[in-house]
Amino acid sequence: MSTAPPNSIRSILHRHLTPEAWPEQGMSPTNIVVSILILIGAMSAVLDTEPTLTERFSGIFFVIELVLFVCFFTEYLARVYAAGEEERYQGLLGRLRYCVSFWAIIDLLALLPFLLTIGASNAFMLRFFRLLRLLRLARLGRFSEAINAVLAAVRERRYELMLSLGAAGMLLVGSASLLYLVEADNQPEAFGSIPRALWWSIATLTTVGYGDVTPVTALGKFFAGITAIAGIGLIAMPTGVLAAAFSDAFQRRKEELDELQNLED
Amino acid sequence: MSTAPPNSIRSILHRHLTPEAWPEQGMSPTNIVVSILILIGAMSAVLDTEPTLTERFSGIFFVIELVLFVCFFTEYLARVYAAGEEERYQGLLGRLRYCVSFWAIIDLLALLPFLLTIGASNAFMLRFFRLLRLLRLARLGRFSEAINAVLAAVRERRYELMLSLGAAGMLLVGSASLLYLVEADNQPEAFGSIPRALWWSIATLTTVGYGDVTPVTALGKFFAGITAIAGIGLIAMPTGVLAAAFSDAFQRRKEELDELQNLED
Amino acid sequence: MSTAPPNSIRSILHRHLTPEAWPEQGMSPTNIVVSILILIGAMSAVLDTEPTLTERFSGIFFVIELVLFVCFFTEYLARVYAAGEEERYQGLLGRLRYCVSFWAIIDLLALLPFLLTIGASNAFMLRFFRLLRLLRLARLGRFSEAINAVLAAVRERRYELMLSLGAAGMLLVGSASLLYLVEADNQPEAFGSIPRALWWSIATLTTVGYGDVTPVTALGKFFAGITAIAGIGLIAMPTGVLAAAFSDAFQRRKEELDELQNLED
Amino acid sequence: MSTAPPNSIRSILHRHLTPEAWPEQGMSPTNIVVSILILIGAMSAVLDTEPTLTERFSGIFFVIELVLFVCFFTEYLARVYAAGEEERYQGLLGRLRYCVSFWAIIDLLALLPFLLTIGASNAFMLRFFRLLRLLRLARLGRFSEAINAVLAAVRERRYELMLSLGAAGMLLVGSASLLYLVEADNQPEAFGSIPRALWWSIATLTTVGYGDVTPVTALGKFFAGITAIAGIGLIAMPTGVLAAAFSDAFQRRKEELDELQNLED
Repeated sequence: MSTAPPNSIRSILHRHLTPEAWPEQGMSPTNIVVSILILIGAMSAVLDTEPTLTERFSGIFFVIELVLFVCFFTEYLARVYAAGEEERYQGLLGRLRYCVSFWAIIDLLALLPFLLTIGASNAFMLRFFRLLRLLRLARLGRFSEAINAVLAAVRERRYELMLSLGAAGMLLVGSASLLYLVEADNQPEAFGSIPRALWWSIATLTTVGYGDVTPVTALGKFFAGITAIAGIGLIAMPTGVLAAAFSDAFQRRKEELDELQNLED
Repeated sequence: MSTAPPNSIRSILHRHLTPEAWPEQGMSPTNIVVSILILIGAMSAVLDTEPTLTERFSGIFFVIELVLFVCFFTEYLARVYAAGEEERYQGLLGRLRYCVSFWAIIDLLALLPFLLTIGASNAFMLRFFRLLRLLRLARLGRFSEAINAVLAAVRERRYELMLSLGAAGMLLVGSASLLYLVEADNQPEAFGSIPRALWWSIATLTTVGYGDVTPVTALGKFFAGITAIAGIGLIAMPTGVLAAAFSDAFQRRKEELDELQNLED
Repeated sequence: MSTAPPNSIRSILHRHLTPEAWPEQGMSPTNIVVSILILIGAMSAVLDTEPTLTERFSGIFFVIELVLFVCFFTEYLARVYAAGEEERYQGLLGRLRYCVSFWAIIDLLALLPFLLTIGASNAFMLRFFRLLRLLRLARLGRFSEAINAVLAAVRERRYELMLSLGAAGMLLVGSASLLYLVEADNQPEAFGSIPRALWWSIATLTTVGYGDVTPVTALGKFFAGITAIAGIGLIAMPTGVLAAAFSDAFQRRKEELDELQNLED
Repeated sequence: MSTAPPNSIRSILHRHLTPEAWPEQGMSPTNIVVSILILIGAMSAVLDTEPTLTERFSGIFFVIELVLFVCFFTEYLARVYAAGEEERYQGLLGRLRYCVSFWAIIDLLALLPFLLTIGASNAFMLRFFRLLRLLRLARLGRFSEAINAVLAAVRERRYELMLSLGAAGMLLVGSASLLYLVEADNQPEAFGSIPRALWWSIATLTTVGYGDVTPVTALGKFFAGITAIAGIGLIAMPTGVLAAAFSDAFQRRKEELDELQNLED
């Protein structure tokens, strides 16, 4: 499939940058470095939002962002160049085809925020562009076969999960309705409508239980108690489905690794 | 069993409206439309309770309700008419027999709230009639074999579930009693009787933990701590039973689908 | 083993009162009535603590208690009389031996509170004697083989459970110590000692999260966050052990019932 | 391997002190006493931090600490002496080699706090040295093969656990970012940066739900609700992995014990 001699720069780049093309087990050193840079970038993006830090270290944050931008931009160009190793991405048209592929768009989107942050005018936009930097984290998905295995296992049980979510939705709306019925007169702010009561309902059924909103009437407390106990069932259903899906995914992965081990022996 | 030629309007209606009579896999297009209308109706009923929305969009809500009423009423008539395809529901007497069947009553009950809401006089009644509209959601149960599979699996383990609920009840009453014993003097409002202490007890044992009511004495905190740890066991019991029941139901369903697949091949 | 003719009153009483002596499956009608009376008594004991109810219905509560006392006292005498059916409990000495057997003592203890409540002088003692009435609930344990099956399954895994509790204890003390270290200066009331910090620690690790006590320093929040995440592991361990124990117990019971069914066919 | 006659004092000491050298099942009486002293010491260290207790019983705490110090110091010397039973720890050089082994260092570290507490000058240092006493608890790890079995099972699944933690981290950062985006203007103190919003995020995703910080805007509550529901999945993943790891460890241990039983018969 490759059109350049296997030891050309483009061929080496392709092997180092494309996870599927790496001949050894695990990640290539280049991609390990890229992953670490992504994690550093995410941490920097998180800390950069804290006013007490930005006041004192704004210069450092800018330098980190600049360095990361240069690194990721270089990486992006290298990926576009190395894509030529695959037949479908050869030539100018092929490169364009590569640029509109899923991961290439994610890569490009993760580059934009740096430029946009500079031009942001109001506080909300600035916050929004800063958050876009966290999109970089999504790029990690490209390197992990394990994430794909988990996603596949979850997808296989999407029917059961949707049913669980449906049942959860019914329970949420049902308990919110009951509390709306009996508490609306006493606490119009918190239970004056079903959408408002849903806030309490979610906090209770997921057993988070903030306690910012609680029923005050005896009947309200009675229904709330039943809701809290029903919440155990609500959690048991998706927990069972997801735990089984994860265990399947890890089991399958282990068997594949064992087989590989046996082939090598 | 059918008495009309297979391509009569009644026969086609029957195939489209009765899930069991639909020859292909999944739901008929007609029932998919009905399900979507039910979901729209439920969402409208939920949003219609929010004062900030009803003030501005009361006209829109009324139109939605009216359209849905016409649709569901037509559907109801069509179902009564199509029921004649089945021998036991033939003739006037048969139709009457259909009208008092479980799902037909649910269908009719789901139609009533629209008429009742118009005539409601006080706030509580209005809220109550509005909630009756959510009864529509129950109609979705007719279309789903999966819900029936889950219900069957839960029913099979009703004995274990009842035992879990019994143990949970004992733990609830026991911990409420202890807290009543040691906290009643300090917080008569919250722990002045076992029924009052049960509110704290449920919040703690289900790990919801609102925090609106907490023990203040050292002994109260000691018993509360033991209760919170015991709550883990309380949750483990029904979680284990339910998760096993759900996994059984989904497993059985999968095997049935696989068998069907094999038969078709 | 029985010394009276099988249809004597003592023999019939023995068959009806002793769960092991009942020849048919399930509970005898007499024991079903006793169980219902126990549940009514428990409910009455719970409601009797609520001041708003005792003020208005104190007469009714007294009548219920009196009737139950007479019933349970009669039942106690009948049990002592019927015990003579078993060789080891024959004669006056045998009856005395029965009276000091485990369940007979529980039965007697459950009778005492009625007499004690009358003579109680201060509020705490009155509360305490009232709670003793809930001891009746323990009597239900005599009738249920399922409870014994669950207890046996839990006992079988007591080693794993003790290990889980040990790990939980270490985690509790460890996180309480860390929070004591960093929060004691800011919140001496809540984190001024490890026993005080344990209250927060239990609420967090069991995910109850009352929120009456939370760290305020950045370092305190950091350790609290790690504690909350570690709490997931704390819950996973006993949940896994208990869920497996319950599933074992129910499985074994089902197999026994199936065998019985096969023997009858 | 032993160089002294099997009934010399050193040999007996070695058998009693080294868990692996004890010929019978379970722990040696000496180590049981040591374990109990460790637990007493931990409890004393915990209670010693409570001001209301130290004021009244400071003398008792000092005596307990002194006695424990003497006991543990004697035990330490005995261990160093008995280590000579093993070839690698023979002679002066061997003993030095023993003193820098993992458990010997832990033993020594657990002795230090008593001396340090006497010399502590400020409140924080005193608290810190007191906590070091809890290091004694770590010494219990030496005696338990079960803890090692659990740790081994967890280590075997470290890959799955890291993946779970990674997914949890993404979810935490993601939900904190969303809440930061929509709530920062209204609650700068609680949601003014992603690190600040992480405090809320952890409390919600672990379902602890303190309620000290909650979103107030409609959009914030909407995202918070989705976060709370996603939290169920977050918990399901490591719970499934850990529960499977624990069940594996206990199963393997049981099989080993059964084999031992069979060999003895």
